[in-house]
Amino acid sequence: MKVVIIGGVAAGPKAASKIIRLVPEADVTIVEKDKYLSYAGCGLPYYVAGEVKEQKELMCTPVGVVRDPVFFQKVKNVHVLTETEAMEIDRRGRRVRVRALADGRETWLPYDKLLLATGAAPVVPPFPGRELANVFTLHGVQDADGIKAVLAENKAHDVVIIGGGLIGVEITEALTHKGCRVTMVEKLPQILRMVDEDMARLVVQHMELHGVKIMTQTEVRELKGEGHVREVVTDRGTLPADMVVLGISVRPEVKLAREAGLELGQTGAIKVDAYQCTSDPDIYAAGDCVETMDLATRKPCYWPMGSTANKQARVAANNLCGVRDVFPGVMGSSICKVFDYTAGKTGLTEAAARALNYQVVAAYAPGPDRSHFMPTAKTLLLKLIVDAKTRRLLGVQAAGPGDADKRIDVAAVAITNRMTVDQVANLDLAYAPPYSSAMDSLITAANVARNKLDGTMDGITAQELKAKLEAGEKPLLLDVRSQAEYDEVRLPDSLHIPLGALRTRLAEVPRDREIVAFCKISLRGYEAALILKAAGWKRVRVLDGGLAMWPYEEILA
Amino acid sequence: MKVVIIGGVAAGPKAASKIIRLVPEADVTIVEKDKYLSYAGCGLPYYVAGEVKEQKELMCTPVGVVRDPVFFQKVKNVHVLTETEAMEIDRRGRRVRVRALADGRETWLPYDKLLLATGAAPVVPPFPGRELANVFTLHGVQDADGIKAVLAENKAHDVVIIGGGLIGVEITEALTHKGCRVTMVEKLPQILRMVDEDMARLVVQHMELHGVKIMTQTEVRELKGEGHVREVVTDRGTLPADMVVLGISVRPEVKLAREAGLELGQTGAIKVDAYQCTSDPDIYAAGDCVETMDLATRKPCYWPMGSTANKQARVAANNLCGVRDVFPGVMGSSICKVFDYTAGKTGLTEAAARALNYQVVAAYAPGPDRSHFMPTAKTLLLKLIVDAKTRRLLGVQAAGPGDADKRIDVAAVAITNRMTVDQVANLDLAYAPPYSSAMDSLITAANVARNKLDGTMDGITAQELKAKLEAGEKPLLLDVRSQAEYDEVRLPDSLHIPLGALRTRLAEVPRDREIVAFCKISLRGYEAALILKAAGWKRVRVLDGGLAMWPYEEILA
Repeated sequence: MKVVIIGGVAAGPKAASKIIRLVPEADVTIVEKDKYLSYAGCGLPYYVAGEVKEQKELMCTPVGVVRDPVFFQKVKNVHVLTETEAMEIDRRGRRVRVRALADGRETWLPYDKLLLATGAAPVVPPFPGRELANVFTLHGVQDADGIKAVLAENKAHDVVIIGGGLIGVEITEALTHKGCRVTMVEKLPQILRMVDEDMARLVVQHMELHGVKIMTQTEVRELKGEGHVREVVTDRGTLPADMVVLGISVRPEVKLAREAGLELGQTGAIKVDAYQCTSDPDIYAAGDCVETMDLATRKPCYWPMGSTANKQARVAANNLCGVRDVFPGVMGSSICKVFDYTAGKTGLTEAAARALNYQVVAAYAPGPDRSHFMPTAKTLLLKLIVDAKTRRLLGVQAAGPGDADKRIDVAAVAITNRMTVDQVANLDLAYAPPYSSAMDSLITAANVARNKLDGTMDGITAQELKAKLEAGEKPLLLDVRSQAEYDEVRLPDSLHIPLGALRTRLAEVPRDREIVAFCKISLRGYEAALILKAAGWKRVRVLDGGLAMWPYEEILA
Repeated sequence: MKVVIIGGVAAGPKAASKIIRLVPEADVTIVEKDKYLSYAGCGLPYYVAGEVKEQKELMCTPVGVVRDPVFFQKVKNVHVLTETEAMEIDRRGRRVRVRALADGRETWLPYDKLLLATGAAPVVPPFPGRELANVFTLHGVQDADGIKAVLAENKAHDVVIIGGGLIGVEITEALTHKGCRVTMVEKLPQILRMVDEDMARLVVQHMELHGVKIMTQTEVRELKGEGHVREVVTDRGTLPADMVVLGISVRPEVKLAREAGLELGQTGAIKVDAYQCTSDPDIYAAGDCVETMDLATRKPCYWPMGSTANKQARVAANNLCGVRDVFPGVMGSSICKVFDYTAGKTGLTEAAARALNYQVVAAYAPGPDRSHFMPTAKTLLLKLIVDAKTRRLLGVQAAGPGDADKRIDVAAVAITNRMTVDQVANLDLAYAPPYSSAMDSLITAANVARNKLDGTMDGITAQELKAKLEAGEKPLLLDVRSQAEYDEVRLPDSLHIPLGALRTRLAEVPRDREIVAFCKISLRGYEAALILKAAGWKRVRVLDGGLAMWPYEEILA
């Protein structure tokens, strides 16, 4: 069996290894345009930051062996052609025309089975000046080396990052660590669109603490400079820039597939079935070039991730070798380190769930990520999206210095299994003080959602409250924190009665106004609302997530 | 509605709070024998170690308010009687006789609903000398203060911990940190019986690195001393001991329940239904005093945990107030910090699965807990237990310095949902290099299990190999690591051929012997086995988990 694999970064080498394991006598060739093979693209920001010291670490196995063509030949018996471009697929003749980039020589590689692992390319809008020096994307090792060279010459004081997605945020952190003054420019009203706007605001607050300037709803018009970039011209002013990194998004590399007449999906990526097979039964595809199933929406989606590429590659390899295997799809799980913060999500955002006409209940739960008395405890801010009709958990978002990745992964499994928040609240998660609270953060959050679903907690989101205040409505803001907490920071025009004193000071709470009770994390706010309701108050709501998740710093007094 | 709650540590206060939230006019009284209320018992080892500085931190809400009787009265409107012992339940008369310990005065508390949250008591075998000073259990705050007092006087040089369970291990870490020479004595052949013997051995190796002496299969005969304990006499010799901590196990406090004629379960704990109701419809029970359902075995079990207590308390409170709620049971999830290691498990151990007649496949997967090129990456050792018939994941065990709790919790959800390893292998877990590898540790482990189930990997456990060697069988040990790794440590009489050279040095591998291929984590070992099989070798097995999970240090050369 002759197998040709086009693409040698993630899905390609993974599939090649699996194919050889299944069919040792297979004749497998990987064709890769670049000179580097099998490197961890997701590690590039950490290479730029200097956390990963050497380029070759990104290309090693866990035990430190470099995955170069010699390695593939000797260990895997896989033939690798680097700096070789696949030009054309002749489906009828079952062969691929390839060109050696060094000398332009072309040859035809015959195949019985073909795997497309062509990946994705960064989107580069046609800004005037995009060809200036020191304007980079962060897609390959060369990009990273280019950025590092500028840093090494100490020539990047002001950096503009265009695009506020995952890559933009990760490279922002890296360059800030390297001493650059970084401004992030995003066309849309929020960065990190994987999470809802309120969660993104919390991340922005944290990035600003680290000196990053973030401009949303800002369009780049032009990059200016002489030879090297010097300024970024936007519709909201001109920014100095010794370096520009474009982290806008990526698009699937589908030229070969399209020209070969393979079916593309509605997202523009290569359409594959659950076996990772394209519209040609002898051609498989995996990784950043394919469309996949969104398990949360049950619709096709384009969600390029290194993790997905590896899993799809295994599935494609199995099926290509005649072993039936299914890739079920993705849950849209995503995570990102942002200085001392983590931001992550899985499943549907509130915005996505509303767009799909779910009757959404959002629950907010800030709190310590492990027993609060442990010195290692850190704050974690969780937002749960729940379907009020079925009580099913639809999505979870996390932000904060605390252990977010555990809760995102646990939630991903729960959502995959269509669990209700009632089921999630009773999960037997492993408990010891260094790892979680007796009630894990996610379980507490599920219980907040249950309280809302059951009508025992009537929440108001920060957004709703802000809108009310701006509309001139005057709900009574009842702050039930301690005096010390109140002295530190507070909402304007709030009535302050510490929770412990509330039962004896009920006379101070007006009966004719809507009450919004709150504290730091709205646990005491919830208690206060229950005390007031028991005492006859009717319109009492609790500020979702309390001041810990209040995203409008400008409103704080 | 009059509610009496017996027990004020975990389940009691939790249920009281929930009851008041649901029925604000309820008249709720907590009766607690001790003077402390609502403290985090699981935090005691960290209080002894000094990580938790003050006793009151164990009794605070996350925002630092002490949960004392005044707090419960003012904030929750819950009446608390501390230093008051419940003596008798008069079910007919629906009342509880309580005695104030200060003056011995007795009164009857009437109830409409009663909740038993009587907890558990440490098992103290009738060793002669157990009444000597400086012999402690670690059950309450007083125990911890007693231990701290001895430490403060600098009088605990040699400490013997009796019992190698969770509490024993946690207090061993604490006392070692405080400078004590600690010997752990365990009657059974292994410590940490929550995990299998091979995993426990890895933990033992780590504890020994930290200077702990561990004696298994050792029975304590007597504690000796004059006033203070001085020695522990065992069937394997006498140990010096300035302090002894008993961490053997706990038994449910069921005296009141039994005397009141409530049904006990087969484990000896109070029998409750899924609503946490006892055999008396007006009496509920929750926490360490009750028996619960083991979701992994579908049998009743006694598995006392602070996390379970809190969840059961909420369920009991709901049902007690007429809101139907179900506690499904536990997955036997458990976790423990051991110096720089974590040890954890969920679901069935291999031993338990075999006892239940499952056709077990165990998969071992050591490796970095995140992208190996990240400087924060640490080793994590995973063991998966799979049912060969259904391919369902039955249990997961983790040990190592890496991020174990995430994988245990993810596995707990997967097992709860009866997922197969094929489904686990395609879970969309959130990936970024600071948090996981592109293929998460758990997914890699699931793929190892799939390889074994599919017959592409024929594993041999360390235990099996050791038995073979001891029986005089001479399988060829084929070490395919690098020269540097081989020089550092190796199995005796092994043939060393680095993987990259194997294809060209096949002639050196005998054809008439069984081969056991291995490397550090058995990824290269697996590749080697496949190369040999493809070249015609028949009897080739891979050492499960490689040298990273080799638990017999004494056999290493």
